[in-house]
Order: sequence, then C-alpha cells, then structure tokens
Amino acid sequence: MTTLDDLPIRDDLRGLSPYGAPQLDVPVRLNTNENSYPVPEPVVEAIGKALAAELRDLNRYPDRDAVALRADLADYLGHGLTVDHVWAANGSNEIQQQLLQAFGGPGRTALGFTPAYSMHPLLALGTGTAWIPAARDADFGLTVADAVAQVRAHRPDVVFLCSPNNPTGTALDPAVVAAVLAEAPGMVVVDEAYAEFARPGTVSALAVLPGHPRLVVTRTMSKAFGFAGGRLGYLAADPAVVQAVQLVRLPYHLSALTQAAARAALAHRDALLGTVTAIMEQRDRIVADLRARGHRVADSDANFVLFEVGGDRQLRLGASDAAPRPGAVDRQLRLGASDAAPRPGAVDRQLRLGASDAAPRPGAVDQAVAWRTLLAAGVLVRDVGLPGWLRVTAGTPAETDAFLSAMEKLS
Amino acid sequence: MTTLDDLPIRDDLRGLSPYGAPQLDVPVRLNTNENSYPVPEPVVEAIGKALAAELRDLNRYPDRDAVALRADLADYLGHGLTVDHVWAANGSNEIQQQLLQAFGGPGRTALGFTPAYSMHPLLALGTGTAWIPAARDADFGLTVADAVAQVRAHRPDVVFLCSPNNPTGTALDPAVVAAVLAEAPGMVVVDEAYAEFARPGTVSALAVLPGHPRLVVTRTMSKAFGFAGGRLGYLAADPAVVQAVQLVRLPYHLSALTQAAARAALAHRDALLGTVTAIMEQRDRIVADLRARGHRVADSDANFVLFEVGGDRQLRLGASDAAPRPGAVDRQLRLGASDAAPRPGAVDRQLRLGASDAAPRPGAVDQAVAWRTLLAAGVLVRDVGLPGWLRVTAGTPAETDAFLSAMEKLS
Repeated sequence: MTTLDDLPIRDDLRGLSPYGAPQLDVPVRLNTNENSYPVPEPVVEAIGKALAAELRDLNRYPDRDAVALRADLADYLGHGLTVDHVWAANGSNEIQQQLLQAFGGPGRTALGFTPAYSMHPLLALGTGTAWIPAARDADFGLTVADAVAQVRAHRPDVVFLCSPNNPTGTALDPAVVAAVLAEAPGMVVVDEAYAEFARPGTVSALAVLPGHPRLVVTRTMSKAFGFAGGRLGYLAADPAVVQAVQLVRLPYHLSALTQAAARAALAHRDALLGTVTAIMEQRDRIVADLRARGHRVADSDANFVLFEVGGDRQLRLGASDAAPRPGAVDRQLRLGASDAAPRPGAVDRQLRLGASDAAPRPGAVDQAVAWRTLLAAGVLVRDVGLPGWLRVTAGTPAETDAFLSAMEKLS
Repeated sequence: MTTLDDLPIRDDLRGLSPYGAPQLDVPVRLNTNENSYPVPEPVVEAIGKALAAELRDLNRYPDRDAVALRADLADYLGHGLTVDHVWAANGSNEIQQQLLQAFGGPGRTALGFTPAYSMHPLLALGTGTAWIPAARDADFGLTVADAVAQVRAHRPDVVFLCSPNNPTGTALDPAVVAAVLAEAPGMVVVDEAYAEFARPGTVSALAVLPGHPRLVVTRTMSKAFGFAGGRLGYLAADPAVVQAVQLVRLPYHLSALTQAAARAALAHRDALLGTVTAIMEQRDRIVADLRARGHRVADSDANFVLFEVGGDRQLRLGASDAAPRPGAVDRQLRLGASDAAPRPGAVDRQLRLGASDAAPRPGAVDQAVAWRTLLAAGVLVRDVGLPGWLRVTAGTPAETDAFLSAMEKLS
C-alpha cells in the first residue's frame, strides 16, 4: 500500500498530521468555540427562502465578487465602511490565506505572538511564507515594548495580531495595535474572530482603519452569528487591499448558496446576535467559578475561557495585583458570582500571571490527563498544547453546569 | 488615495489584473461553459429539502472531512473507487490549489501544455510554484513524443494535463497520459472538468488510477451537473494523495450547505445529467455548422467549441487529412449536419490544423473585434487570447440559433 511518505510531498509537510480538533460525538461539545445556540426558527425560515430562490439558477456561476454580500457586511460593520473596503471568503482562514498569498509567500515572512490562533503558522506553511514565532509574556500578555521590539528585530512582511486572542481570550491593548502598525514594514492583520464577545469598552481595530492602508481586520460569522456551518469570513481594509486579494482569490470561490445564506443571516442579525449576551454571561460565570475554586484563569473577551487545570489554586489574580502596571492600562475584570458587572475603570485586558509562573509548577496537573477526565464525563474541551492549561467554550447554562460539574472530577 | 502599487504586494503580482471573464448582463451568455439548463424542479425541491435540514444546526462546524459527500462522489465515479480515494473542495480550482500546496510550492515546478486551462499557471503563481509553459503542436495537439520530451527536459514536480482540453475542447489520447505518467518524476494531474461531455469511446484517466499513486484526476460538478453556483470540485487518486491534501486544506473548507446541496444533486444525477446529451447535440451542431461555413474548428469532447473567427474558411479539416498520423490514433469526428453520429473507427481526438497554419494567416479576423461584434448582437462568447480564435459554449438550441445567427455578422 502506498503511504504518504511514498509520495513526493513537500519536505516541510513530511511527518505532519492534519490540523483539527477531534470531532467526537459527545453530549457537551465545548472544544471549537462554536455558538451553542441553534439558529432561531424565524432565521431558519429566512435563510431557507433565500436559498430556495437560488436553486433553479445553480447552473450559473455565482457573482465572482460577491458585491451584494460585501455591501451587507460593510453595513453591519459600520465605521463608514463600504463594499470597496470589504472582502469575503469561505471562513476567515481563507481570507488570511489570501492575505498571505498576496503579501507573504516565498521569500517573505509572517510573524505572530504565540500562543495565538494555531492556524496562522499553518497558513504560512501552506503558502510558503516563513513563519516567525514571536513571544508573549510568560503570562500570555503582550506589551507595547515587547511587541515593537520583536517586530523591529524581524521586520516581517506580515504581522498577525489576534484580538481577542485565541486561545487566551483576552483582547489586545489598542496601543499594541497602533505601535505595531507604526513599526511594521509590511501588513498588519488583526484577527477579530471573537470581537462581538468583547467586554464593554473594548476598541476594535476597525476604528483605526482610516489612513492605515497596511492594516487589515479579519472577522467571521462562525462565532457570534452562530454560522460556523455556513463558512463566511471577511476582512475590512483599504480598498487597495481588497484589490490585492482579488489577484490571488480563486474565481467563484464563494458559492451562490453561501452568499445567499450569509445575506439572509445578516438581515436577521439582531436575532442571531441575541445569543451573544447570554454567552458572555456564561463565559463570565465560568471565569468567576473557576477562580473561586482557585484556578488561574485568563481574562476573556471571547466565547471561551483558558484555565489552568490544576497547580497552585491559591495563586489567582486577586486584588493585590489589580493595580495598573507601569505603561499598561488596567482592564482586568474580576467577575465573582456577586461581581458580574464590569468594574468602573477596569481596563487591563492582559492575562497577568507573573513571569515566575510561566512554567508548569510542581504539582501541576497534566492537561492531557485532565482533558481525558473531562471527556469521560461527557464534556469535550480543547487541549491547545499549553502545558497545564485547557480551553473551554462558553455555551448554554446547561453546558456550563455540565462543565463545572465535570471539573469537580479534577479535584 | 492608496493604490495597489502603494501596498507591499508580492513583486510577481505587480501589474496583474484579477482573473475572470466579464460577467455581463447579455441575453445569450456562452462564455464560461456553464450548463445552460436551469436545475429541474424536482431537483430544486430535493436540494431545498436537504438544505432546510441543515439550517437549524448551522451554528455547528460542518464535517471537516466531508465523508458522506466523498462516498457519494466515489459511488458516482465508479471504477471501484471509495471514500478514501476521493477529496472534495469549493470547485476544482481549490482542489488543484491544494495539490500545488502539497506537491508544488516554493522551489518546485509545475508544467502544463499551453493552451490549456488558464487557471493552472495562476494557481501556480498563487502557491509560489514556478510555472513551466510547455507547448502543444501548432495545431493545439499533443503527441506522446512531444509530451514526453518536454517532461523529460524539465522534470517538473507537477504536470497538468487537461482532457478534454480547455479551451480547445479535445480529449487527450490516453497514450499521452500513460507516457507522461511513466516519464514524470512527480505528480500528474489530469483535469477532467468536462469528462461527461466526451464523445463515445473516450477513456477517462480514472481507469488508469490503480497502481499509479502519482496520478490524480480532478473533476467538477460545475459543468455536466449544472451546479456551477454550488461550487463543488473533487479529485480521485490513491488514498495517500487524499491524506496529502488534508495536510494543506483549510479546516472546515466545505460548508454544511455545500455538502448537503451536492449530495442532493448527486442523488438526482440522472435528472441533472439528462441535459448532457442535448448539450452534446448542440456542440456537434455548432462544429458542423461552422465547418460547413468554412471555419476551422477544433474537435470537441466538451460543452464548448473553439473556432477560428475568419481567415481562410476554405481550409478545414476535410476527408483528406482524416488518415491516422504515424504514431497517433485517428479519432477525428466530422459532424456535418447530415453526419451527427460518430463514424465507425473515428478516434483521433487532436485538433489537426497542420504546423503551417499555426500563426494567424493574412486576412485573419482579429478575435477581439469579432468578440465585440458578437457581443453587440447579444451573444457573449470567450476570447481566450488565442489570436484569431474564439470559444463558444454549447447551450440550448435557441442559444445555438442566436450564436450561429450572430456569426453571420462576421462574414
């Protein structure tokens, strides 16, 4: 039998396994940051009608430039954006791949601050772009000084920022975006897949677009919109960036069905985004509950929570380190059960664990063991490869109950 | 205002324009080889139902490996193929891009025999694969000896063959596929987008798959299935090839809607493919009619016809050059109006115009002028950049009427 090794695949792919979380049939699936709420019935009907109107003419190619959909996306984003500022594709993965094809590729480099979205380096690999893994703080934070120093050292063609960051969940200080944009010689891509879940006061990089043609903001309908199965990612940028990705996009990449379904979903965005507040409540509940139990937990502006499975549960982000660090804005939210509202002036969005806590400490629980324990209890979470840490999606109240109950098995 | 030139795009993209035929609102659109027949009502209903069943759960990611769809595609292809031999993506463009990402890319080469599908070199560009434009005969044919010599000279990592070839329309001699496969050091991709329209007796490269793990056959549902708007391309190959493209595919690249709609279409393939015979009749009618008017016309196994717009209309592929060339199999079909059935033993599938007829001859009509003349008459055809030649899609009888009528304006 022929194996992968017998084929003339690229050397840099040899020995790799396909990316992707296990797709397991488990009662509580909290591993891919899906929106746990099914599409509401009125929206199902509207999408069904929109699709039905396309079916007879499926023999024809779709609008190659998806103009109507892009106009709808621009309208949703606001910020004075128009169809010319927006581009859409089959998920933000394809958007980011197109950006790397246009601005990265052979002989060029892309840089990201690890840990971040694990597809960024894989997209670089798939497009022949050399990947530069830059570092976050030991506490997963990213300061202006650190970010600028690393961009200055490597002068990458493309910088990926991720805000709210995946897998940590914390939104970036806008000053980091501004500083990286000022320092970077090439494109700066801010991946805002989880933007709709950010805590009040978070500033989107969309606000920075005017006058910054090297800035790109990518978004997705997979998360807040609950449209993961529909596959719709998009970007907002200077119109010249949209022209650039059109040089590398596959013609007719976006099916007539995708375009119609996404437009119907956008037309019913109030109904779809109605789940966001409920999800944020569960997210905040998970953060507060785990902290109350002594787990270290990253501040989350997303629909998921990164938590330490074991270790010193007494060490947590308490009031004693809530004071702003020099040069950083304090936006830490401490949502105990009785403390669900944002504190006035709470603005530090970096996870602060302190440099001395970076490595797994003695007594730390192996996250792979914990992952299996939770799975055995019917709860699927995500092992993102950070020693001692796991990521859990915030879903329905019942799913939170199941997760928090399963977590007791780790004690 | 920022322009494309102000951005740090790749040097090899500078000055390029996006690929794509003009999408014009014209009564008769015969420029992108779509299937002119709308989806039949019973199939519309079936696809609509299949889509409706997915909508409530669009909050969930689709099956990343599209297993059920791939099984259906394998069943359609036959040849003993199974789900493990088949991979699917958003159009065969994405399939071929994935193949180049896995087997081409930086430091590697891909070779194709020009003129062929114009996306092949663009996909190479987009994946950082160096493109080697190999030559067809002056008459657009490709002999075993020529194909082998060029593969031997360049030793490309990926060879693209195209059968039936686009834009010429003629299927390859299977001996060319076998000889290239024997000579090529790397992968051999046979693009069979138009396979369902081939004249009787044409052999698909699917038959050659067993025992040839470096052979890949790509197909699409855009043409015969009339599913261009649904965007579904696929490949058949050794299971190791499927594993290879899974290393570079974007996770969840194929939406739940695409998977469901394509499965419903495949379940109703008899109804959808019912248009193929009617389209072949129109194709043969176009070939015969244009030849009767003295145009040189390429033999077509596809749903389109490549024809010379002017020139010496007396010079045509007549009985006098129907005899097999040494080393080539005679499969030429001459379909005069009274000669619609394949001749017994008619097996030469290369376009034979003779080396001396390669360049536009004195008196040749500029194809861009002819294109505009036809457009003014309400008929949109395709200028594929071959001096003196245009390509027209075979559609409905009424569309053929309109095209042939408009052609009189060129006289």
